[in-house]
Amino acid sequence: MAKPHQSRAVIERIRPEVDGGRFPIKRVVGESVEVDVDVFGDGHDAVGCVLLHRQEGEAEWAETPLVHRVNDRWRASFEVTKIGRAEYTVLAWVDRFLSWVRDLKKRSATDPDIGVNLRIGAELVESASLRARGELATWLREKAAFLGGTAPTMERLATALDMELTERMAAHADRRYATKPGAAHGIVVDRPLARFSTWYELFPRSLGAAENRHGTFRDVIAQLPRIAGMGFDVLYLPPIHPIGTAFRKGKNNTTTAQPGDVGSPWGIGAKEGGHTAIHPELGTLADFHALVKAARSAGIDIALDIAYQCSPDHPWVKEHPNWFRQRPDGSIQYAENPPKKYQDIYPIDFESDDWQELWQAMAGVVKYWIAQGVTVFRVDNPHTKAFPFWEWMIGEVKLMHPEVIFLAEAFTRPKVMARLAKVGFTQSYTYFTWRNTKAELTEYLTELTQTELREFFRPNFWPNTPDILPEFLQWSGRPGFVSRLVLAATLTASYGIYGPVYELCVHQPVAPGKEEYLDSEKYQITRWTMGGPNDLSEFIARVNRIRRDNPALQSDRGLVFHPTDNPEIICYSKHDAASGNRVITVVNLDPRHVQSGWIDLDLAALELEAGRPYQMEDLLAGGHFLWHGGRNYVRLDPQVVPAHVFRARQHVRSERDFDYFL
Amino acid sequence: MAKPHQSRAVIERIRPEVDGGRFPIKRVVGESVEVDVDVFGDGHDAVGCVLLHRQEGEAEWAETPLVHRVNDRWRASFEVTKIGRAEYTVLAWVDRFLSWVRDLKKRSATDPDIGVNLRIGAELVESASLRARGELATWLREKAAFLGGTAPTMERLATALDMELTERMAAHADRRYATKPGAAHGIVVDRPLARFSTWYELFPRSLGAAENRHGTFRDVIAQLPRIAGMGFDVLYLPPIHPIGTAFRKGKNNTTTAQPGDVGSPWGIGAKEGGHTAIHPELGTLADFHALVKAARSAGIDIALDIAYQCSPDHPWVKEHPNWFRQRPDGSIQYAENPPKKYQDIYPIDFESDDWQELWQAMAGVVKYWIAQGVTVFRVDNPHTKAFPFWEWMIGEVKLMHPEVIFLAEAFTRPKVMARLAKVGFTQSYTYFTWRNTKAELTEYLTELTQTELREFFRPNFWPNTPDILPEFLQWSGRPGFVSRLVLAATLTASYGIYGPVYELCVHQPVAPGKEEYLDSEKYQITRWTMGGPNDLSEFIARVNRIRRDNPALQSDRGLVFHPTDNPEIICYSKHDAASGNRVITVVNLDPRHVQSGWIDLDLAALELEAGRPYQMEDLLAGGHFLWHGGRNYVRLDPQVVPAHVFRARQHVRSERDFDYFL
Repeated sequence: MAKPHQSRAVIERIRPEVDGGRFPIKRVVGESVEVDVDVFGDGHDAVGCVLLHRQEGEAEWAETPLVHRVNDRWRASFEVTKIGRAEYTVLAWVDRFLSWVRDLKKRSATDPDIGVNLRIGAELVESASLRARGELATWLREKAAFLGGTAPTMERLATALDMELTERMAAHADRRYATKPGAAHGIVVDRPLARFSTWYELFPRSLGAAENRHGTFRDVIAQLPRIAGMGFDVLYLPPIHPIGTAFRKGKNNTTTAQPGDVGSPWGIGAKEGGHTAIHPELGTLADFHALVKAARSAGIDIALDIAYQCSPDHPWVKEHPNWFRQRPDGSIQYAENPPKKYQDIYPIDFESDDWQELWQAMAGVVKYWIAQGVTVFRVDNPHTKAFPFWEWMIGEVKLMHPEVIFLAEAFTRPKVMARLAKVGFTQSYTYFTWRNTKAELTEYLTELTQTELREFFRPNFWPNTPDILPEFLQWSGRPGFVSRLVLAATLTASYGIYGPVYELCVHQPVAPGKEEYLDSEKYQITRWTMGGPNDLSEFIARVNRIRRDNPALQSDRGLVFHPTDNPEIICYSKHDAASGNRVITVVNLDPRHVQSGWIDLDLAALELEAGRPYQMEDLLAGGHFLWHGGRNYVRLDPQVVPAHVFRARQHVRSERDFDYFL
Repeated sequence: MAKPHQSRAVIERIRPEVDGGRFPIKRVVGESVEVDVDVFGDGHDAVGCVLLHRQEGEAEWAETPLVHRVNDRWRASFEVTKIGRAEYTVLAWVDRFLSWVRDLKKRSATDPDIGVNLRIGAELVESASLRARGELATWLREKAAFLGGTAPTMERLATALDMELTERMAAHADRRYATKPGAAHGIVVDRPLARFSTWYELFPRSLGAAENRHGTFRDVIAQLPRIAGMGFDVLYLPPIHPIGTAFRKGKNNTTTAQPGDVGSPWGIGAKEGGHTAIHPELGTLADFHALVKAARSAGIDIALDIAYQCSPDHPWVKEHPNWFRQRPDGSIQYAENPPKKYQDIYPIDFESDDWQELWQAMAGVVKYWIAQGVTVFRVDNPHTKAFPFWEWMIGEVKLMHPEVIFLAEAFTRPKVMARLAKVGFTQSYTYFTWRNTKAELTEYLTELTQTELREFFRPNFWPNTPDILPEFLQWSGRPGFVSRLVLAATLTASYGIYGPVYELCVHQPVAPGKEEYLDSEKYQITRWTMGGPNDLSEFIARVNRIRRDNPALQSDRGLVFHPTDNPEIICYSKHDAASGNRVITVVNLDPRHVQSGWIDLDLAALELEAGRPYQMEDLLAGGHFLWHGGRNYVRLDPQVVPAHVFRARQHVRSERDFDYFL
């Protein structure tokens, strides 16, 4: 389209973009993409430019006019309406007609050259008529004839400056020399659950009703009402596959299992099968189908764990020894992080010469479970597998199944985590688990929501996982479990907990200074009894209901931190402009003491009028308050509720709303 | 080289880069390029990476090891040694040998697997020996045999961990799966004058010794001692071509010339010729050659003006009417900015269908003057010509003549100016001309020297030009001319003045509120008489000598602003780490009043030890001072000298330097 030599318009700094367009941005259906771009030409000529966008594979681009804002920066938005992949780019050209109209307005009607100028315009309109069709072509041809004709100058000037002409000319601008960037920018468009999701993780085998009975999928089905009642919409299960016996780990991660030890679900593969088999004690494939179906009825997606690693008993080890790294003694290299050894685990060799068959087999695992009705996957340690594999596999899977969601369980260095999100992971685990102070939370959330990370990295906050009982929760007691849950649930649109240990405030580490749970369910079956003073189930249900009722909490855009004069009190808000929904959260980060202080709400950021009062409804504790101005006092007792979650409304009726007031 | 599927190393965010590598960075011979890059792999494996660089066109890359700094960010530097175009890129790979050595250090010598581990290393060394040649190959093969042999474990461990082995293995790392970015980043390597230059502009026709005699190239030759004496190394002449007579401008830019009016040199082209001809009254081509030669002897480069526009009398107008835009009445479109008309100027039509021949002709102008010995060009209004032309033309010219320097005279919007620098201009005019306050200067210089602009945009500061007598100079008197000169000369490594009006402090505008000179030399011949109380020649000579003596002033790197407690006093320093040269400039920005105040030197930025005194030599006024600590008092009287230019030295000998002191 563009002839580079005659293309005088310049396009620079398209935003959003990820690594110069190398990776797609992410959105969910119904979200808008707001694009900013520098566009300019040489000299004084006016430029025309449009934002082009389409679903990938479509032949035609949709166009949205870019609007100039300041300093040669233009903006336009469009909405993504279909899951899959979309793309956008920009087209710009030096627009002779626009320049002509702009200049004509500045010319004097008595300029002896005005006749020639009108004829120049007539030629531009005439040639646009050749690009137009049907009635519009005729209309333009008539205008051209009139402009170049013999009617009085003032009449021709009026015709030239008529907005209708400008608008119709814009539709047929001369784009012969338009500039277009090399490649369009991609967008992965996901279903809404990718943005707003509430996860619950449990070990099915701990759900056996009777002592010594291994829990099953049927037991999970029995738990669904409780889980749905708490407001969760994703139920994530650790690996459900046969567990190896070679080098099986014992209770509390001991290296030699005792008879009866159940082993770690992540030690995948045994004589019964590998990644596409089901651990016999959990049930049958039919049971699994029943679980998926029952969960769906309860509004819950079942999420499976994808852990690309094999126990020494995994069928692949025998069938495809070249998918693993061989040692000179003919044995297969187990996982290690010297001096630690994980002899129950064989890592995949991504440099294998047989990589093509290997990759197909690994993608086949995901495709198999999709065929069983699973569309959400939590991927174990993706940072220890090759990035090019993820980019290919996730792309390949989402081509046919764009509804699929992949959560990256990577707790590693920041750039590695970002890269995983770039290559395709839908959501990502984060450092939230270890961010406790006001400064840490503010800095981290600012990075997640204000930098380019927000275009491709969707955080999913977990206050605990089977691998991590954070130090804070070991000593904070119930108030700490409550405050961490409120933070996770209101800071980001996706969060999850590992239960029932979370609801029950279980806080014993395996040893002082360790973040492993004592008697971890990773290595043994545990019976849980719900209820009692520490059971947070009802509180969690309330928090998740608040999330569901308030659109502001369903997105990470619009997060703003507000100053407080007490370092133990954090205050932030989320604002959803479309619905006008505003949620202001205040949390006492100190689980041991009552804390009070002044907060300074940024009313402008909340689009609250400074001069008028506004109503604050405490969605957690109940109660309505009328606040005036930004500065307000709060006091939070961790033994009662360590947080306020307010909904702010300004449309409070007053006498001024009545006509006769004035 | 890279097989994307097995390439596990990631390369991101190479810096410097301009628009993702679309444009080259700029350096001069002898400067270093410090490259920062994110490199990482998946998992725990170590990565190896090198910076590759070469002169463009060379077959082999030179390699510099990248050194890890923090957070997966690596750095390496190299020096550019040859003018022309160079390039750099990064190569990274997951390094199995490095991982093996690192892990081996953490293993226990009594680990039953230690034997297998040593054999793994033996295999890695063996395969490296196949990539090596000659003696090194033999050496590696022997080491491999030893590692995999039967010698005592401790001896084999010692051999494995020997640094010599690691170093030699690094030279033959397994790069089969190395990752390399798509395209290398370019570097335009210029001669030193591109970075450090001191320009003087004058109108040759004003140099006629006798009244009513048109100045000539011979008169310019006569001026060379004066100009060289003031320390200038570039002498820039307005266009030297025949001047058109059609619509010639009269004195003070009146639209009708009177008999005898000489016209504007920018009205290029007459019956005597166009852009490759010489205005007969200036002399002959032989005279011009003599000027170029004499200037060179005086250490001065002659810079010509390239103004791609034509008077109606230019030969191109008749020979190539299709290089201009035709109007419907058959006339050619003159330049205009409605309602203003510039009927003496025909702009080039860059959308001409005959663009190829047109571009060749325009490049031919530059090539012609290069053949006459000119290697510096000041390009008039480049922002009104198409960017693709500049990119092509400058690239084309510098391919054969990498020594050529192009200064862009663009006073326009910031992104347009930046784009011109990106597409190839060596130096650029700036907004300095209108930046007067401490805040304005600090902000602007910070942008120029601390953002990515510094990689491709070389500022050239002009306190005045024939088009601009800034408002400040109209009322500031001699002190203002002095302070603006000191600022220009010490803030950036390249600056220039238009004289002799500058040395003589000429400050009459054509009308109040205008920035045009009264009786501008653009439209008439003016006789100048040097000397008198306002003649700044000697002062300028002193400032330019300071520039020549102090390497810190010859680069824009290392500029730091220091706080002062008086808004009229600005303080900044430049530091050249290689020579240890430090220059601290303090300027009173108020030309009317004595100003005094405290400055807080950032001693760390200057690499001055806080606990020891340092010597400050005032290079402008003379005198040595011993300062202690960062906080010092200054007082500047604009009627004496409104500035200090200090050289700071800390190696002041004291009794502590003697051995017997301790």
